Amino acid sequence: MKLAGRSIIGFREGSTSGAKFRAHNPVTGEALEPDFYSASAEEVNQAASLAHDAFATYRNTSGAEKAKFLREIASNIEKITDQIVERGTLETALPKARLQGETARTCHQLRLFAQLVEEGSWLMVRIDRPDPDRKPLPKPDVRSMLRPLGPVVVFGASNFPLAFSVAGGDTASALAAGCPVIVKGHSAHPGTGELVGQAVREAVRSCNLPEGVFSLLFGGGNEIGTALMKHPHVKAGGFTGSRHAGKLLMNVAASRPEPIPFYAEMSSTNPVFILPGALRQNAEKIAAGLHGSFTLGAGQFCTKPGMVFVQEGTDAANFTRKLQEHVTGSAPFHLLTSVIHKSYGTGINERKAKSGVKVLAESAPGGEFGVGAALFETDAQSFLKDADLAGEIFGPATLLVRHSQREEILRIASELEGHLTATIHGTEQDLRKFSDLVSILETRVGRLVFNGFPTGVEVCHAMVHGGPFPATSDGRSTSVGTQAIYRFCRPVCYQNFPESALPEELKDGNPLGIWRMVDGEMTREKSSQPQLQVAG
Amino acid sequence: MKLAGRSIIGFREGSTSGAKFRAHNPVTGEALEPDFYSASAEEVNQAASLAHDAFATYRNTSGAEKAKFLREIASNIEKITDQIVERGTLETALPKARLQGETARTCHQLRLFAQLVEEGSWLMVRIDRPDPDRKPLPKPDVRSMLRPLGPVVVFGASNFPLAFSVAGGDTASALAAGCPVIVKGHSAHPGTGELVGQAVREAVRSCNLPEGVFSLLFGGGNEIGTALMKHPHVKAGGFTGSRHAGKLLMNVAASRPEPIPFYAEMSSTNPVFILPGALRQNAEKIAAGLHGSFTLGAGQFCTKPGMVFVQEGTDAANFTRKLQEHVTGSAPFHLLTSVIHKSYGTGINERKAKSGVKVLAESAPGGEFGVGAALFETDAQSFLKDADLAGEIFGPATLLVRHSQREEILRIASELEGHLTATIHGTEQDLRKFSDLVSILETRVGRLVFNGFPTGVEVCHAMVHGGPFPATSDGRSTSVGTQAIYRFCRPVCYQNFPESALPEELKDGNPLGIWRMVDGEMTREKSSQPQLQVAG
Repeated sequence: MKLAGRSIIGFREGSTSGAKFRAHNPVTGEALEPDFYSASAEEVNQAASLAHDAFATYRNTSGAEKAKFLREIASNIEKITDQIVERGTLETALPKARLQGETARTCHQLRLFAQLVEEGSWLMVRIDRPDPDRKPLPKPDVRSMLRPLGPVVVFGASNFPLAFSVAGGDTASALAAGCPVIVKGHSAHPGTGELVGQAVREAVRSCNLPEGVFSLLFGGGNEIGTALMKHPHVKAGGFTGSRHAGKLLMNVAASRPEPIPFYAEMSSTNPVFILPGALRQNAEKIAAGLHGSFTLGAGQFCTKPGMVFVQEGTDAANFTRKLQEHVTGSAPFHLLTSVIHKSYGTGINERKAKSGVKVLAESAPGGEFGVGAALFETDAQSFLKDADLAGEIFGPATLLVRHSQREEILRIASELEGHLTATIHGTEQDLRKFSDLVSILETRVGRLVFNGFPTGVEVCHAMVHGGPFPATSDGRSTSVGTQAIYRFCRPVCYQNFPESALPEELKDGNPLGIWRMVDGEMTREKSSQPQLQVAG
Repeated sequence: MKLAGRSIIGFREGSTSGAKFRAHNPVTGEALEPDFYSASAEEVNQAASLAHDAFATYRNTSGAEKAKFLREIASNIEKITDQIVERGTLETALPKARLQGETARTCHQLRLFAQLVEEGSWLMVRIDRPDPDRKPLPKPDVRSMLRPLGPVVVFGASNFPLAFSVAGGDTASALAAGCPVIVKGHSAHPGTGELVGQAVREAVRSCNLPEGVFSLLFGGGNEIGTALMKHPHVKAGGFTGSRHAGKLLMNVAASRPEPIPFYAEMSSTNPVFILPGALRQNAEKIAAGLHGSFTLGAGQFCTKPGMVFVQEGTDAANFTRKLQEHVTGSAPFHLLTSVIHKSYGTGINERKAKSGVKVLAESAPGGEFGVGAALFETDAQSFLKDADLAGEIFGPATLLVRHSQREEILRIASELEGHLTATIHGTEQDLRKFSDLVSILETRVGRLVFNGFPTGVEVCHAMVHGGPFPATSDGRSTSVGTQAIYRFCRPVCYQNFPESALPEELKDGNPLGIWRMVDGEMTREKSSQPQLQVAG
């Protein structure tokens, strides 16, 4: 497949009138062919209008048809995996195996949502049966289910060119919900984006869906994204990126004449607490695991552990020594973009200049475009005094925080802002002794990890990849796992509707055989009548 | 029980240093004893700090304990029903029977939430079992459930002094979720509010819950409400009131250093579409029902039908004549407050001055403090030209809109902003012929009513009392029915946690016997192991 460098607007190709930009190879700095063209304001409008029109049809597409569509996207992506991985490696400097794995994960994710919408229980069907004899007033027949919000704008992320990009989790969950999607592709990997975009477009076509179900717009700056979020036809947005950009777009979403939900996953330092028993028993293993985790993907994971708390003493000293060895021996890393490269350098230098912070280990950057890993250390008092130390440095760096008392660590936990994850290494005895720590952490994060590492987010039903602000714009949501679909729906209820006018999901006989709550009881019986509780 | 006129701050009484205000009898204009005292900024802080402290305990209170608490509140309210109804009638001019009914509804609502949290399935438990042998990486054990957000501020509504006030739906759902509640009482019915507040406080005490679980603050202006919404310990807000106040508070919630969810139910004109078959067959019955609905509670329901669409012709003329008779024969109404009284007068006069609008019928106001019902009429073209005509007039008035073509009515539906409800009167044949109308309306409202009227919102599992902006601030939510609980929670996930450190709801043996999704399948088996799907 040849790259056109043009936006995908339904079944149409974008124009070449907009500003040109190119992807760059992060390993060499070299600009990659071809030119890509930023979409115009008119093309934003076209994509939004097509999405709006498509919504009228697509929102009434059955679960089975949506499942077929999602599976078709996955198959189309799989067919061009080699090409995606080849281009992706050039654009992101991520290793081939990682991109192969991420492609597989992206396809797994699409298929998991296919399963979900085919099965149907996610719709939260509620049926309350009528009682015409109730006093003082008859009880009506009330039935509700989730319905899609409307066109959704998805912002591709720099750090997951597949799983959080054109056909990533936001797109998969929005399409599964019944919402058309307009992707604003990330300008660091436009070629990878275009390949995936073509795979989605082909699926729209072969499934006979209206063309506006999917568009992919390119843009080098932030005008296109902002214009999309302001468009009256757009009803929600999904974003993974920096706190700065996320907060700007939160503002755009909240200041519209019609404010809309905007789900930004923005930043997180993912605290790790190594409790005394674990530190004594597993120092070596934890040091190796931690190094692997904070340097995975060159430290460019949203879930990278960026601050690590240990109680000072001999065990901490052993652990620190091991960790230093790992860091010093790190191979050079290449970051995703020149902007990230520069900002990593600034972050490292600013941290070095902090009073109370020392560099415990660094590794060599390996040339002009590479960077080294960095391990910083500070004490609890310095940490508590300087909020910057709890901030994210995007790249292969982490901060060890030594503390001397239990109270210090509880105070640190209480003062944490929202994060995606918190990790605890401990023995069962540690956990009992620090149950108050676990209890505090639960109010600060979306996911608690025990004796593991936060990087590597399982795509499953129970996953929560979210967390209180500022980890995300909306702590009530997850952007990974099947519960991500709930971001793009709202409940609608039908009162005293005749059977013939009800959606299939709400009909008496439960023709789709889905789990429904009938008069307060879960059931998936396919009877001519749902379990009718006789009113008392 | 004697009224103290002071805020309830946990188990403490508020001071008498703040500005004084009194309730007024809407029928006579007379100021009612005693004086009530606005809370101070310091008291806002006290209530928020108590709520924050209480959250540490209350969020871990079991479903069974929360159920006991909610039922205790209901019993305490029932014990003083007579006093509540007596005071409520003085403060609101609502009839005794209505306030008795509303008290019963409030208690039913508390008990329905008690049932919900006792049963436990609302927690959306998801369990994905591990697979240590999975390639390329082992699959972790991931379990998630909903957890409460933190202290919630509830704004009492003027028009439902019980069901949407101190112990109304917002309070019941927030307490059920595990969130402490601080109510900003409505200053139009402070006595009713204090009585209910004392009933809640006694329940907190007798259930041995921490005092900060509940506070009730009085305030004549909007400073107290704004200060509460800005307080860093507050994590969500619930509001029923005017669009003006709702939008101001939406802004406060979104502009905080930590933005928080704010659920405002703000305004709605609840369109009614009377289709040709129904107009022919049921003109008399619909006219009587419509009159009853738009004048119910003196037209001060959020769900009052404020615009009614009919196709012009003989049937419409018959219908209109009937409706005119009903309106002309209406007994005088008393509105809730002097502010509402004044604003109804302004609304009526502004509408009278509109070109293309005529008054079809009015009834007599019956004295200085009363108001009459009003029936306006316009045509589709005038309606489409003037957005004001789709706006809410709070009080016993409605607008008939005549149209001549099917296209007009579809265009009107397409251009509707968000409303709480839309109602369709039709035969089954009408419904088939106007299926596109139903389909459009579904994207505009939270509840579709067939051959009925939107007033009278059933408190049940399937109810959706919400709708796209500007009907509410957040169309993904409902403020009535058990699904209202989802506004005050967020999912939290536990990865590879040892059984002993997991919440009861997530433990292997399902000790609480609740519905859970295990490896994608709903089950409530109480086995030593959940249904383990062997990974393929």
